[in-house]
Amino acid sequence: MLKVLKFGGTSVGTLDRIQNVAEIIKKIKDEGHNVIAVVSAMSGETNKLIEYAEHYTKSPVANEMDMLLSSGERVTSALLSIALNAQGYKATSMSGRQAGIVTDNAHTKARIESIDTANMKNALNDGNIIIVAGFQGIAEDGRVSTLGRGGSDLTAVAIAGAIEADVCEIYTDVDGIYTTDPRIEPKAKKLEKISYDEMLELASLGAKVLQNRSVEMAKKLNVNLVSRSSFTPEVEGTLITKEENIMEQPVVSGIALDKNQVRVGMYGVTDRPGIASAIFTALADANINVDMIVQTVGVDGKTDLDFTIPTTDWETCKKVMEKFKSEAENIDYNETICKVSIVGVGMKSHTGVASKAFTALASENINIRIISTSEIKISMIIEEKYAELAVRALHDAYELDK
Amino acid sequence: MLKVLKFGGTSVGTLDRIQNVAEIIKKIKDEGHNVIAVVSAMSGETNKLIEYAEHYTKSPVANEMDMLLSSGERVTSALLSIALNAQGYKATSMSGRQAGIVTDNAHTKARIESIDTANMKNALNDGNIIIVAGFQGIAEDGRVSTLGRGGSDLTAVAIAGAIEADVCEIYTDVDGIYTTDPRIEPKAKKLEKISYDEMLELASLGAKVLQNRSVEMAKKLNVNLVSRSSFTPEVEGTLITKEENIMEQPVVSGIALDKNQVRVGMYGVTDRPGIASAIFTALADANINVDMIVQTVGVDGKTDLDFTIPTTDWETCKKVMEKFKSEAENIDYNETICKVSIVGVGMKSHTGVASKAFTALASENINIRIISTSEIKISMIIEEKYAELAVRALHDAYELDK
Repeated sequence: MLKVLKFGGTSVGTLDRIQNVAEIIKKIKDEGHNVIAVVSAMSGETNKLIEYAEHYTKSPVANEMDMLLSSGERVTSALLSIALNAQGYKATSMSGRQAGIVTDNAHTKARIESIDTANMKNALNDGNIIIVAGFQGIAEDGRVSTLGRGGSDLTAVAIAGAIEADVCEIYTDVDGIYTTDPRIEPKAKKLEKISYDEMLELASLGAKVLQNRSVEMAKKLNVNLVSRSSFTPEVEGTLITKEENIMEQPVVSGIALDKNQVRVGMYGVTDRPGIASAIFTALADANINVDMIVQTVGVDGKTDLDFTIPTTDWETCKKVMEKFKSEAENIDYNETICKVSIVGVGMKSHTGVASKAFTALASENINIRIISTSEIKISMIIEEKYAELAVRALHDAYELDK
Repeated sequence: MLKVLKFGGTSVGTLDRIQNVAEIIKKIKDEGHNVIAVVSAMSGETNKLIEYAEHYTKSPVANEMDMLLSSGERVTSALLSIALNAQGYKATSMSGRQAGIVTDNAHTKARIESIDTANMKNALNDGNIIIVAGFQGIAEDGRVSTLGRGGSDLTAVAIAGAIEADVCEIYTDVDGIYTTDPRIEPKAKKLEKISYDEMLELASLGAKVLQNRSVEMAKKLNVNLVSRSSFTPEVEGTLITKEENIMEQPVVSGIALDKNQVRVGMYGVTDRPGIASAIFTALADANINVDMIVQTVGVDGKTDLDFTIPTTDWETCKKVMEKFKSEAENIDYNETICKVSIVGVGMKSHTGVASKAFTALASENINIRIISTSEIKISMIIEEKYAELAVRALHDAYELDK
């Protein structure tokens, strides 16, 4: 098998942890597999370099930031290769450029345009373990580029897709995807398999583990992703794959919780054509990610508009809403809410999933403020103080611990 | 003018010092010159990375060391470019590869084979200040390579030669080349100009400032080198140039002192053809740099052989000499000696230079054990305890403080 492995900043955070990663790679190599390992910078390094740059300006030029930040991954890749070679394993490090990763010119948030795998294939044919400096490529302008947050995961997934690897294993300090956050519900179970779409909907469960950008790319390139831990490499992780590869699909796979939501209420809006469109266009133009929207038309011809936004966009949102103040009797913001979501591809073919959720919450006297549903997800806005109780109630209701 | 500037590790040792370097560059740019600045890693960085590698092995693979070590200069070049851009100066960093520096495949001690200046010329034509990550290039194998000790100086000199810069200024924490070490003789004067050959002979005076490898390359490429300080940039440094550019050549330019010498004495050697050749071939094969050699034939047909070696080669030398033990009555080693050298191109055309030195030392009752002379240098081995006294006596004798 050809395996692409990715080790994040925590997994390579110290010299001893890099040695630990070398042990994982050696074991896989000894089992007869070919290995391409993608590495992040040692944890803390990238932030240190950003602080260095900010000593001079709050807005350093983007292409120089890439020259600066790309150095951290290069250091890790060289150290890991040195460790492997020292133990008699043939390994070679590669920068993004050497790995053939070409990006656009959007420095600090570049997108991968193509991967020329020739250099990697030659190195594999020569029996090398390849260690790729993640998070970076070479832009069309000939300069080094970086891929932004989650860039090393993206590097790994893109390489796995381009070179048609059998699997892309993302090693972090978490050993897989759970039915819900185990810190909230100790009975949470690790999932053996999950589909790309479920994973995308369960983002909050995997946020620290897998970024949506990588899962989306894995889905697009049909890459089998595995989330597992470099601290307990003996534990099998969770396979994220296409729906067809999951034989027995549970109705509900997991319960996600998102506390970083603000509910925006716009009450007594005089209902005229185009008003909702104007508001949401303005919010979109300000790059605000509006999540759930509910519109209620009252008997008096007035409309109430409720929607949620991420807490980080709150200040920006207030500024945008200022323009629409005259349109409504009242605009208020409520951050003491949270979003609980039930995700499962099985919902498509099962009925009664939603009503089970409503019943579970009702039996705990939890009021649902907003509901929105998609093919594989039911999201509910509730008061934040009930967050953990709701998660546990739903986890029980769908018997996810079984 | 097109100026190539080089800033060493101490000059870029902190974020504030990098800002100081930006000020120097801005001033030169404001004066209407074009600037290519070559930078080292921040002081301490390279050693830190070497320690990291040695965590895994005492002999890390060379090409990975290059991947590792080259990152330090990349960081400095990006930071300096960020600082300049933040202050409204158009600047662009370049790795060795981007600067067109091609080396052989001798990783960690690569030699520059060629420099393609097209990329730099384009950037200069676009009005950019160029910041080159020193010490590195791209090897023929497509991997990053480093140039070994003094590599950033070499980068600067090689670029200055290839792009036909008007001057190559090497900034350190010392403001030029002095007639002798000012810590020994406070009356030492800074030289305005000195020839390449004198600089090479005065290596010990400039060791912390300029490595011979760079001076040799400057001589070969006819690059005007200036040694000056980034801490007192207002002070003119010393110009190292070809002899013809120095109108009035002093008879003696400087006095050098080298305490890291061991005198090897081989007494009562039965004089047979080829014995000296055998000894010095064996020493050369062991990479020992034999410096001064004196052979004295006694009345009894026995020969005494005296020579000096660097202290660092002492242990190796002892092993080699073991093979020749039977050839001599006695072999002894004396490390309480030192070498004092008088250097000056004017010696070629002046007589009485040597006798003035012997007189000066004799008047201080200093015995000269070995003497060797070249066209522009007289070296003398004396007892180490007289080292400073001898330097001061000679400095006075040639009136170098005038």
